[in-house]
Amino acid sequence: MIHGTNLPEASKRRLRAGIIGGGEGAFIGSVHRIAAELDGQAQVVAGAMSSDPAKAQRSADAWFLERSYGSFREMAEEEARRQDGIDFVIVATPNHMHYPVAKAFLEAGIHVVCDKPMTFTLEESEKLVELVESKHLVFALTHNYTGYPAVRQARAMVQRGLVGSVRKVLVEYNQDWLMEPLEKQGHKQAMWRTDPAKAGASNCVGDIGTHGENLLEFITGIKIKSLCADFTSFVEGRVLEDDANILLRLENGGKGTLVCSQIACGEENNLNIRVYGSKGGLEWHQQEPNTLIFKPAGKPWERMRVGLDYMSDEAKLSTRTPSGHPEGYLEAFANVYRRAINDIRRVKGGLPMEGGYPTVYDGLRGLQFVVKTVESAKAGAVWVDL
Amino acid sequence: MIHGTNLPEASKRRLRAGIIGGGEGAFIGSVHRIAAELDGQAQVVAGAMSSDPAKAQRSADAWFLERSYGSFREMAEEEARRQDGIDFVIVATPNHMHYPVAKAFLEAGIHVVCDKPMTFTLEESEKLVELVESKHLVFALTHNYTGYPAVRQARAMVQRGLVGSVRKVLVEYNQDWLMEPLEKQGHKQAMWRTDPAKAGASNCVGDIGTHGENLLEFITGIKIKSLCADFTSFVEGRVLEDDANILLRLENGGKGTLVCSQIACGEENNLNIRVYGSKGGLEWHQQEPNTLIFKPAGKPWERMRVGLDYMSDEAKLSTRTPSGHPEGYLEAFANVYRRAINDIRRVKGGLPMEGGYPTVYDGLRGLQFVVKTVESAKAGAVWVDL
Amino acid sequence: MIHGTNLPEASKRRLRAGIIGGGEGAFIGSVHRIAAELDGQAQVVAGAMSSDPAKAQRSADAWFLERSYGSFREMAEEEARRQDGIDFVIVATPNHMHYPVAKAFLEAGIHVVCDKPMTFTLEESEKLVELVESKHLVFALTHNYTGYPAVRQARAMVQRGLVGSVRKVLVEYNQDWLMEPLEKQGHKQAMWRTDPAKAGASNCVGDIGTHGENLLEFITGIKIKSLCADFTSFVEGRVLEDDANILLRLENGGKGTLVCSQIACGEENNLNIRVYGSKGGLEWHQQEPNTLIFKPAGKPWERMRVGLDYMSDEAKLSTRTPSGHPEGYLEAFANVYRRAINDIRRVKGGLPMEGGYPTVYDGLRGLQFVVKTVESAKAGAVWVDL
Amino acid sequence: MIHGTNLPEASKRRLRAGIIGGGEGAFIGSVHRIAAELDGQAQVVAGAMSSDPAKAQRSADAWFLERSYGSFREMAEEEARRQDGIDFVIVATPNHMHYPVAKAFLEAGIHVVCDKPMTFTLEESEKLVELVESKHLVFALTHNYTGYPAVRQARAMVQRGLVGSVRKVLVEYNQDWLMEPLEKQGHKQAMWRTDPAKAGASNCVGDIGTHGENLLEFITGIKIKSLCADFTSFVEGRVLEDDANILLRLENGGKGTLVCSQIACGEENNLNIRVYGSKGGLEWHQQEPNTLIFKPAGKPWERMRVGLDYMSDEAKLSTRTPSGHPEGYLEAFANVYRRAINDIRRVKGGLPMEGGYPTVYDGLRGLQFVVKTVESAKAGAVWVDL
Repeated sequence: MIHGTNLPEASKRRLRAGIIGGGEGAFIGSVHRIAAELDGQAQVVAGAMSSDPAKAQRSADAWFLERSYGSFREMAEEEARRQDGIDFVIVATPNHMHYPVAKAFLEAGIHVVCDKPMTFTLEESEKLVELVESKHLVFALTHNYTGYPAVRQARAMVQRGLVGSVRKVLVEYNQDWLMEPLEKQGHKQAMWRTDPAKAGASNCVGDIGTHGENLLEFITGIKIKSLCADFTSFVEGRVLEDDANILLRLENGGKGTLVCSQIACGEENNLNIRVYGSKGGLEWHQQEPNTLIFKPAGKPWERMRVGLDYMSDEAKLSTRTPSGHPEGYLEAFANVYRRAINDIRRVKGGLPMEGGYPTVYDGLRGLQFVVKTVESAKAGAVWVDL
Repeated sequence: MIHGTNLPEASKRRLRAGIIGGGEGAFIGSVHRIAAELDGQAQVVAGAMSSDPAKAQRSADAWFLERSYGSFREMAEEEARRQDGIDFVIVATPNHMHYPVAKAFLEAGIHVVCDKPMTFTLEESEKLVELVESKHLVFALTHNYTGYPAVRQARAMVQRGLVGSVRKVLVEYNQDWLMEPLEKQGHKQAMWRTDPAKAGASNCVGDIGTHGENLLEFITGIKIKSLCADFTSFVEGRVLEDDANILLRLENGGKGTLVCSQIACGEENNLNIRVYGSKGGLEWHQQEPNTLIFKPAGKPWERMRVGLDYMSDEAKLSTRTPSGHPEGYLEAFANVYRRAINDIRRVKGGLPMEGGYPTVYDGLRGLQFVVKTVESAKAGAVWVDL
Repeated sequence: MIHGTNLPEASKRRLRAGIIGGGEGAFIGSVHRIAAELDGQAQVVAGAMSSDPAKAQRSADAWFLERSYGSFREMAEEEARRQDGIDFVIVATPNHMHYPVAKAFLEAGIHVVCDKPMTFTLEESEKLVELVESKHLVFALTHNYTGYPAVRQARAMVQRGLVGSVRKVLVEYNQDWLMEPLEKQGHKQAMWRTDPAKAGASNCVGDIGTHGENLLEFITGIKIKSLCADFTSFVEGRVLEDDANILLRLENGGKGTLVCSQIACGEENNLNIRVYGSKGGLEWHQQEPNTLIFKPAGKPWERMRVGLDYMSDEAKLSTRTPSGHPEGYLEAFANVYRRAINDIRRVKGGLPMEGGYPTVYDGLRGLQFVVKTVESAKAGAVWVDL
Repeated sequence: MIHGTNLPEASKRRLRAGIIGGGEGAFIGSVHRIAAELDGQAQVVAGAMSSDPAKAQRSADAWFLERSYGSFREMAEEEARRQDGIDFVIVATPNHMHYPVAKAFLEAGIHVVCDKPMTFTLEESEKLVELVESKHLVFALTHNYTGYPAVRQARAMVQRGLVGSVRKVLVEYNQDWLMEPLEKQGHKQAMWRTDPAKAGASNCVGDIGTHGENLLEFITGIKIKSLCADFTSFVEGRVLEDDANILLRLENGGKGTLVCSQIACGEENNLNIRVYGSKGGLEWHQQEPNTLIFKPAGKPWERMRVGLDYMSDEAKLSTRTPSGHPEGYLEAFANVYRRAINDIRRVKGGLPMEGGYPTVYDGLRGLQFVVKTVESAKAGAVWVDL
């Protein structure tokens, strides 16, 4: 698991992690804990899991944490000072807190794994890029879908020229959880997601559309050049969009669409991507993540399966079980941690980072995408450059 | 098969059909013959199957036709005069001949079944509407995909309110047959499809995008209000588009995308549609046409299968075999004929038409859609009203 | 369509067909008519469509037949005498009449296309083999599932060694139409299917299990050597089996199972086959018949699609449309006719037969299989040689 | 996570686990560790991970274990004595060691989670049942496939009568990893699996067939009454079977087949089950484990998805993420641990066990099944009672 030689003391133990946010009732908190600990290379030992002290304590107790803090600032300070302080922190707060928390820990010299979107505003993201560049610290963003082995495989196949020149990309992320006005019925996540003060200028694109953007650019290695976004709020009284259809033009001359929705009745997390090139096509569906379809020109489609020998090294590095043992969302999430932890160990050992996980630049890119999408939509769905 | 009572002499025999075009080597000619004759209610007996007289004769001989003509005008005149003249004509010529041929037979008092697109220009379509309205004749357009029983079922379910208010529609028609420059390699269909002089102002949208438009409006019963179309010619030297991504706004406030391509590597005739409403969703794929997916809100997806008892009368009217016996493209095509022949018999018997097949208005709508799509694309992918 | 040269007069016209049985209400009658006429190479012109004269006449009128007979014997005699008599007869009667009808027409020198099972008893089948061998006439059995292009492809791939030595074969044909006691509720087909006097010694295996046997031997080219069959009558009061599970041993040392059921709740006509060899595997499902899965050892599964260039000539000979245009049950049925008609024309032209359709030997084999399966089941599911 | 009240001290910390076997290179060792620790309720702290002391130490170091032992007997003794000794042990050794290891820890008063098959011989299993019954200790067997939420859902639906009376069950577990003679090429797992001295009297049925048996009886709640098993060794020189086809008769009068293979070219871990009852059917595939197909009589198939609200409490108890986040093999394995840990805590708190995981009785049943299957096969595939 640990790449490189002459690794230091920190390689002889599990890394110690802390978590900010993710307390009681927060689905994503448990996901982070499981993903961080899955390979047995790290353990969450400290946390400031809620701004409500009682809840923070209950959450820490439920996880058997050694240290529970009342505030992230106190925690950053104290953990930086301790001999057995945390090696890295997990930022699992609501979006608007990502920036101050990440900043505090980076400044305290602690590596960071941060939920997406990276920050609330584009400016914060730009500042965070500067900060990360100035420190020699790992900053990993849990754009988890790129952690799937089949996604790594798709990227490797594009890099090896198996699809030729990319011509057309179709990305979708359709859900239905906001098809009714849950925000008027006391549903907490719905309340903040649809509230511009908490979610920012975008709901649907900011939450799930960015996953599509990230997946597209990750697999193809090509940037989106310009876009034309049509937003809709289908549920009465909702201010932010709950649906978006976006035309894309890519830097290499390719074209595409990115469709995302929270009102697509019957859809769960139907993230999928199809790439069509001059020599072959690729197709992947998040809900059946262990299969990748390859469509070589003039030949039968090939159904590639995670875990089999013919898969690339990139895919194999992200696979824990032999073929036929389906892996899922938690394992993909854990792959971001696996690679980030590798780099944290390497930095501690004085080795150069290897990457293999989404970084602060992916976070910045995501913010840029959302800002430009909103700009296009507000102008009536016109073309804007990214 | 024959609806209504007091039907006349023509009900006591197979109808007689003629065909213009569709000679040797034309795939679509055989499709029309099979579809017209499938139910045993009509037989092709006469034709002007090619402008090349020898080829016309060979084609007629291969089909055992009773009468072969050198020109459609001669045929229209002669068949209108004969006691045993044809009851209807099938127009299976290249696109630019649809209008003069249809006009000649309508003016001769002969019913028409015409291939799509209905005419070469919008103006011709408008004239044809007038002509059909002034005669009491059947004019059926073989927008064949709406002939599938599962498509009829989808439409019936929308009409009965099972999806609620339509919010989002995603339509795709992806192929790959033009991913290489076949038009430079002597491929005949590729040559005329990519030649503006023969195909008109659009290649991909005119050929297959219109099927998407027709399917969307057929199933939902809602018109497209405006669109924003991004065209690309991916293959070097090609003038007309071989790919299009189109944003749609519907008259009821719904939104959607229509994606069509002839360069989507690995795709055959991947026409599919997904409709998302306020109560349910629907999904249908042309390449597995006997299944319709229904996605009622909050419940498991239902896999509806053609031929089963729970299907609607509309679907059953278009089904020939019990469940488990897959039906396909030819049967769907034949369903257009089945309903058109029903109306031809009804008109002959003095009864009002019942419809149930695409008409001259669908043809006009298709031309309007293509014209507006081209207009949008030429202006750089801007919004235009339809 | 017509293979060979120097073809006679009969090649210059559609062949004339007659039909016995298949009248009003008989689903299979229409299937035969459509299949026989689909390629425009034959037309049903005469019939003795019911033993009830009024029904026979109504059925003939509905099909616009030129000649309707009161009995098959009268028809055989008269048609053999006429100058414009039928070229072949379609036997679509209940099972127990197959033998006398086929015999009468063969003896009158008329080619035969016969529904399956070929005869009521094994002895009749043996006699029919002798009769066919003594005449130079075409005898085609509509074991229609082998008419699917993907099935032809599968057979061709086995013949070319792509699966290596066949080791294991799993065949299934599951339905649910008899899961309730329909025979007590006046359902006609259920009444005769479950009545030993009319269906013979077996219901489920005789009706659908034989399709599995035929498909297995057709694709693999290997005979079943012995079997062990466990029969069940799940519905109370039913004498004949409505479900069977059968272990198979093949002549080449391969093994397999054949599972068939009429009480498998939720299944329509779920006929499918999986072949596993020393080099590759194959999988085909009748309800999605245009796809064949190939599983080469150590490589991704390949999804082969009917109509594409990479398919074998055997498959292409059975395909009418380009890829992406799904074909179905009727087209597969028509492929039996296509090849039988080819041979009828060849015989009329003095050419040797080419085959390519199930024959009297397949019919005999089917009867043998049913007899041995019943023998095994009656003895308590013991092994018997076939 | 912890059910019941008044829970003791052990509820205030993660449980401590030990592991026997599972060292370097053993895939299943990591699976146990991940599964045991996934919910943050236990941590592996001690181990005797290999009979090779150096390897044992390296394995313990790689997992950052606190205590590494040279033998399981020493470990059982020492851990039973320590104040901070392990709460339960994981038995992940080769099969023939399961019994002595489990016995040693049970006798030391330590709870056990044991890999399957439970023991090497039937007699050992019978003794283990007695031992477990005489102690008040948790004994969980990692028959992991029953840990999938969709499998729990299937069982719950059968219990609630949604499929009615079970009539037919088809179970398959097909793989291809032994289709070549790997045992002659130095492949370690292949060597012991195909060696009667190490694998016992059966290879394929013992390894994977038992999963099928367990799944069938778990979901339906019905026991297999008798069976007829046909074994084959397809690869030359192999003594034990690498393929089996088995007819089943169930205690309630139902019938079925169980097919398993290690030479089914192209198959990974294609475990699947179909249950057909008098009111409905169920279908589940391990390789796409988050979907359960329900086939209610006369209605469309329903595609049920793990994580959605309509799922049963039984399924929800085994689900960690909302719908659309695919879960897999490791999570299913972890569900066995989740429920076993719950019972370990309950026992420590003086509460009665709740179950919800496979026990010593499932282990015994598995051994009985293998013994009887071998008996049938050796006699030439005859019926034997189970």
